[in-house]
Amino acid sequence: MKVIKDSVHDHIQIDGVARDLLDTPELQRLRRINQLGTVSLVYPSANHTRFEHSLGVYHLACEALEGLGVEGKRADRVEAAALLHDVGHGPFSHNLEALTHRRTGRYHDDVHDLLADGEVGAVLRDHDLEPETIADLVAGEGRFGQIVSGELDVDRMDYLVRDAHHTGVPYGTIDHGRLVRELTFVDGELALAEGNVQSAESLLVARALMNPTVYSHSVARISKAMLRRATERLLESTDVDAHTLQRMDDADLIARLRSTEETTEFSRRLDHRDLFKRAVWAEIDDVPGGIIESDHETIREFEREIATDAGVDPECVILDVPRRPSMTESTSRVVVNGDVRRLEQQSPLVGALRAAQYSQWRLGVYSPPGMLEAVGRSAVSVLGLDIDGALVSEVRDGLDATLDQFLE
Amino acid sequence: MKVIKDSVHDHIQIDGVARDLLDTPELQRLRRINQLGTVSLVYPSANHTRFEHSLGVYHLACEALEGLGVEGKRADRVEAAALLHDVGHGPFSHNLEALTHRRTGRYHDDVHDLLADGEVGAVLRDHDLEPETIADLVAGEGRFGQIVSGELDVDRMDYLVRDAHHTGVPYGTIDHGRLVRELTFVDGELALAEGNVQSAESLLVARALMNPTVYSHSVARISKAMLRRATERLLESTDVDAHTLQRMDDADLIARLRSTEETTEFSRRLDHRDLFKRAVWAEIDDVPGGIIESDHETIREFEREIATDAGVDPECVILDVPRRPSMTESTSRVVVNGDVRRLEQQSPLVGALRAAQYSQWRLGVYSPPGMLEAVGRSAVSVLGLDIDGALVSEVRDGLDATLDQFLE
Amino acid sequence: MKVIKDSVHDHIQIDGVARDLLDTPELQRLRRINQLGTVSLVYPSANHTRFEHSLGVYHLACEALEGLGVEGKRADRVEAAALLHDVGHGPFSHNLEALTHRRTGRYHDDVHDLLADGEVGAVLRDHDLEPETIADLVAGEGRFGQIVSGELDVDRMDYLVRDAHHTGVPYGTIDHGRLVRELTFVDGELALAEGNVQSAESLLVARALMNPTVYSHSVARISKAMLRRATERLLESTDVDAHTLQRMDDADLIARLRSTEETTEFSRRLDHRDLFKRAVWAEIDDVPGGIIESDHETIREFEREIATDAGVDPECVILDVPRRPSMTESTSRVVVNGDVRRLEQQSPLVGALRAAQYSQWRLGVYSPPGMLEAVGRSAVSVLGLDIDGALVSEVRDGLDATLDQFLE
Amino acid sequence: MKVIKDSVHDHIQIDGVARDLLDTPELQRLRRINQLGTVSLVYPSANHTRFEHSLGVYHLACEALEGLGVEGKRADRVEAAALLHDVGHGPFSHNLEALTHRRTGRYHDDVHDLLADGEVGAVLRDHDLEPETIADLVAGEGRFGQIVSGELDVDRMDYLVRDAHHTGVPYGTIDHGRLVRELTFVDGELALAEGNVQSAESLLVARALMNPTVYSHSVARISKAMLRRATERLLESTDVDAHTLQRMDDADLIARLRSTEETTEFSRRLDHRDLFKRAVWAEIDDVPGGIIESDHETIREFEREIATDAGVDPECVILDVPRRPSMTESTSRVVVNGDVRRLEQQSPLVGALRAAQYSQWRLGVYSPPGMLEAVGRSAVSVLGLDIDGALVSEVRDGLDATLDQFLE
Repeated sequence: MKVIKDSVHDHIQIDGVARDLLDTPELQRLRRINQLGTVSLVYPSANHTRFEHSLGVYHLACEALEGLGVEGKRADRVEAAALLHDVGHGPFSHNLEALTHRRTGRYHDDVHDLLADGEVGAVLRDHDLEPETIADLVAGEGRFGQIVSGELDVDRMDYLVRDAHHTGVPYGTIDHGRLVRELTFVDGELALAEGNVQSAESLLVARALMNPTVYSHSVARISKAMLRRATERLLESTDVDAHTLQRMDDADLIARLRSTEETTEFSRRLDHRDLFKRAVWAEIDDVPGGIIESDHETIREFEREIATDAGVDPECVILDVPRRPSMTESTSRVVVNGDVRRLEQQSPLVGALRAAQYSQWRLGVYSPPGMLEAVGRSAVSVLGLDIDGALVSEVRDGLDATLDQFLE
Repeated sequence: MKVIKDSVHDHIQIDGVARDLLDTPELQRLRRINQLGTVSLVYPSANHTRFEHSLGVYHLACEALEGLGVEGKRADRVEAAALLHDVGHGPFSHNLEALTHRRTGRYHDDVHDLLADGEVGAVLRDHDLEPETIADLVAGEGRFGQIVSGELDVDRMDYLVRDAHHTGVPYGTIDHGRLVRELTFVDGELALAEGNVQSAESLLVARALMNPTVYSHSVARISKAMLRRATERLLESTDVDAHTLQRMDDADLIARLRSTEETTEFSRRLDHRDLFKRAVWAEIDDVPGGIIESDHETIREFEREIATDAGVDPECVILDVPRRPSMTESTSRVVVNGDVRRLEQQSPLVGALRAAQYSQWRLGVYSPPGMLEAVGRSAVSVLGLDIDGALVSEVRDGLDATLDQFLE
Repeated sequence: MKVIKDSVHDHIQIDGVARDLLDTPELQRLRRINQLGTVSLVYPSANHTRFEHSLGVYHLACEALEGLGVEGKRADRVEAAALLHDVGHGPFSHNLEALTHRRTGRYHDDVHDLLADGEVGAVLRDHDLEPETIADLVAGEGRFGQIVSGELDVDRMDYLVRDAHHTGVPYGTIDHGRLVRELTFVDGELALAEGNVQSAESLLVARALMNPTVYSHSVARISKAMLRRATERLLESTDVDAHTLQRMDDADLIARLRSTEETTEFSRRLDHRDLFKRAVWAEIDDVPGGIIESDHETIREFEREIATDAGVDPECVILDVPRRPSMTESTSRVVVNGDVRRLEQQSPLVGALRAAQYSQWRLGVYSPPGMLEAVGRSAVSVLGLDIDGALVSEVRDGLDATLDQFLE
Repeated sequence: MKVIKDSVHDHIQIDGVARDLLDTPELQRLRRINQLGTVSLVYPSANHTRFEHSLGVYHLACEALEGLGVEGKRADRVEAAALLHDVGHGPFSHNLEALTHRRTGRYHDDVHDLLADGEVGAVLRDHDLEPETIADLVAGEGRFGQIVSGELDVDRMDYLVRDAHHTGVPYGTIDHGRLVRELTFVDGELALAEGNVQSAESLLVARALMNPTVYSHSVARISKAMLRRATERLLESTDVDAHTLQRMDDADLIARLRSTEETTEFSRRLDHRDLFKRAVWAEIDDVPGGIIESDHETIREFEREIATDAGVDPECVILDVPRRPSMTESTSRVVVNGDVRRLEQQSPLVGALRAAQYSQWRLGVYSPPGMLEAVGRSAVSVLGLDIDGALVSEVRDGLDATLDQFLE
């Protein structure tokens, strides 16, 4: 048995198949992938990696399994899946997910291959575990898959606490010890035992508060959009394909972006934190509904149109349209007076937090500081935005007389 | 300048009038008053005192004043008020508040006297501060009183974090550093500066989650009700009056309860944690509306009636009817797009949390373990409760055939 | 199984005999005994109790037993002993230990009685455990007794971390998780496994740094000496005997001291933190060796002599002579290259810390602020102190010309 | 003023020249340099960077300056120096220091150039600060330079606490708040005020315990030695020179090591954590004294000789000879009874910790797992080691009969 010191869970004991998986190149790669990607440009201490998070998820899975009385081969499978659940992540974690998924097709297939091949596959087979089954657990399939990926999964419990610890933002401090201990199976579905409505709510609230403060902080979104744009250029202008990209770590990608002519400017901006700023920051309600359903190509079309209208280089306009807010935790199961209920049936908080999320749902148009006014004006016109409220304060505060007139 | 080590804020620097107030008997008494009263019977680590909390409130007040640019005599007054804000608390803090206020009349007058008399008054006058003005600040009056007592007061910021630290329940971990720094005055009203809707929400959420988990935990409520009952008996059967009670510390009251024949049994039960249990735990909706507005006498009448009906000693029935839930934080002011808004106008969370609070609002009837069934049955009948849902699971689980029939 | 939330170890699961012991009056009494006695007059947040500490010791004992592979009845015994280890403590914990032991004889016999009688005895027998055996374990006897009381006991591990957490002084933050996990038995003796010399040193260092900063802080020593003196008067002037005292909790003793004429002045001083100050603070080297070995009567004789010489009331002079410094941890066993060695054989730190402890070993003479000079002068003369270095700075700084001459 | 959230100091307020320096490429580069280099291969959470550390040092410098009453231009200079103090660090922080210094000459000159040139120079001059002066402060020169670099510098205070926080090893938790506040100047020398011998000792002890547990952990040393070897090869086989190396960040170096044929194998080993192991781990006393003073060339000569003797590729032998242990903190100044003393004159701990450090001083010979025995044997012979105690347990445990004979 190996004991690893962790800044969140203190000591993590690792044993059996997990112990052997630890030494595979696939898992070691996660040491070099930041957990929160560009969020570290907002919170400088947020340099934790997918590797330590994977250890944390494994640790909480072990505790959950013990509480649920799951042992033997069954537990081994869940533990392996917990440790491996992020092994398919590309560089900068979720930052480039949309990009690589668009280009490589389903993420799930990719994880299947990753677990079947290479050293991970060999270790799994050595321990008489079928890679296919582990991949299904990673995808949250089946009774036990819910522990790894689902409304009450240990992934969420670890990342909330870990991200809070490393950013210094206290909102993610849930009572993971209690949550893990109170997990139970009712009719094959994972639920929180009687008396845990508040615990379930606290999980929901933690994510609802971490979202705008950390995960969707405007500067994190801007830098992520810049990174995504740069990486698209890399894929278009070099022999790097989406599959290769997916297997890189952060250092690989940084190095390629620096050394590729087409991406060197974005790379410099990211390195020096010389970022684009918001030309437009609009509630999505203001936006013609169609844009959300738009495919990637439509969005690029909008960007080009805005750039043309504003008379600037197309590389200077980024249109950032986040997906419709979702709230997985709202369907968490909780036992109330002996019955299993979905949290959203039970808690008035669910609806309120969903409403809050929608009210924070913003479309952004970003460009270099010098062109904010021109780009903002064009974007309002091209996207047909309701002008009132659409331009962010950075622009508004610096409005010259002309724009003031324009806005009136 | 004196530096005091605090387990929450690390180092607290204390100076000027506050430094001198620290040595007064009135403030030193707070060392012997538990911050959370009987909550320590649920959370054994929750033994922090009003004294350390007062230091914490003073510390946050100093930070707030610095951020607001308030200096000199004006700052001295607020600092004194912050340090003294709990000086009027009787033993077991809020546990006996209702009792003493009922008997002594307005709390406010009492604080006025306390600050004007004795060593506190002498110290204040030595520093050219008028006790009357400080008492007004303690009561939250005037522009600067809001810092000490109001929707965004530093009292709340300290107790949430401190209670979380000492109970081990993480829900109270707000970002007090940010909150204090973002305070601003708009048209004489204390508000959070632009961009702090989430900060305001986090404060609200913290209290909403701490409430059922800590402050209104059923065992804390039961033991508090027992302590209140015992103290009433003490006032009735000895020469201790409400005013004397108010000046006691926890040790005084414990000793008197132990040595008074009429209260020795309650005292033993509290000492040995041999507590009453819930015979009824009913949503207040189930209850004839009138009971909430009932005065103390009506409630005692109900208790006696239930006891008679159940054939038990009246001392074995406690009816606990909490006040209508309130949510001070819902009217916090936040600057949004340049305008000051009340949080409830801005955040869908306010309504949801208020609804959640109402749904957790419970009336309790408590009695010794051996008589739960009889007392529960009588209480349902006397109070005219809707039977369904009114009896708590402890009773229900142990129901004999008779009661099962009764419930059907 | 019951789960208790603890501010240090987060969740403590308690089961079996320990679960039942929890509800005994003997254990519940520990809720009302401060862990650090008068230390809270120096560190206002240090209000933790023997009860939460007992839970922590139980928790670490469970972890140690699991690591050592001890199960069944054997483990039950150690767990019971861990939970009960402080059940014999009187009010204010160690503060009055010397006093009660002097008067009641051996502490050990007392614990034997406590565990055999009352509800604790009944619970133990219900679980087929012999009170006698548990009392031996509490005394550190036998192979497994070392876990509860010995150089590497879990008592020490809990109190260092807990006292650090509650005082805010970081020096006690040892790696208890590692220490507990690395415990092993070699030839029936408890030792730390190979590779843990630093771990053992860290335990030693933690206590060496906590000692002067917390446990023997001069203000804690003064207030403890005042409490001891008051309690002696109580025993002399009332029907309270040492045995009754030993069964009191803090509230009992506070109340008795307040209501007894002979002790009311000391009580007032402690309540208002209006403490004696140091008239003399002398390295013990300066002191005629004999004083250390002196019995209690000799010390009282000295006090009277000083008071007479200074012309003050004998109640105004306290002579505080701490015992010769000891360092239990210096004999901790550690496995080094396969052999068990005592830490003092292995680590140069042991000697250095011992030397440091001796250099901090101070005799104090305390009296009310107004008489420091007179009492200090008399004490120097009566005790035959080397004048240079004997008077504390408080006195020295306020020296008038006369005393300056005297000192020259 | 900008406020940055930090996981250690919570909120850091940054203003004036520091605020402007923050946006320079030179400082932003530190975001991509791990604070502890290869230590993250031992402690997976230790991914904090020189950037957040620099912010922390700046923060503590501000607090120290406030306490010392230093203001205006003088304070600006020290604050700038604090923020910039690590700007000269190359990739992997101290890991490659010896290497780059050997090749670039004096580090100090380099910092002078760095501060005078580029955007940092421009910002400094904009604020009327002379780069030369700031570089002197970074080097610890002059009265105020001691705050930035010296026995009691804020650099040390930040890194101990930060490294403890991120590794999870508690030994570094010093009371930095107290240390910073107690700094004072006596005759132009920085010292801790009266009553702080323990504070000074705690700083010393913290580093003494962090050293073997974190900074010089054997796996951290091995991986560091491998990285150093790889980087030497890079410098020999490519156009990268020491100066270019010094300006790289971690990602740059990782990418170059991966893409250079001569270093790809070391790079793979580091990426996959497939590390060399200890063939020899000898107390330096066992070693011919001369080796310590040996220059780099002599050590390489030894390595080649061992490889030849063992019949293995020279790339498979690394001889790691750490410098003679030093203990800067031993000369910290503390005021004792009004006089300034060096800590080593005052505290018996200094000598003991120095002795402990010497007893932990080890020479290592590392090689791939398959050749440990052969390399170990040759190293013992080539270096003329005292055999007893020289071979590490990994080797010893796997000894075949031959080696057993050899050892006898």
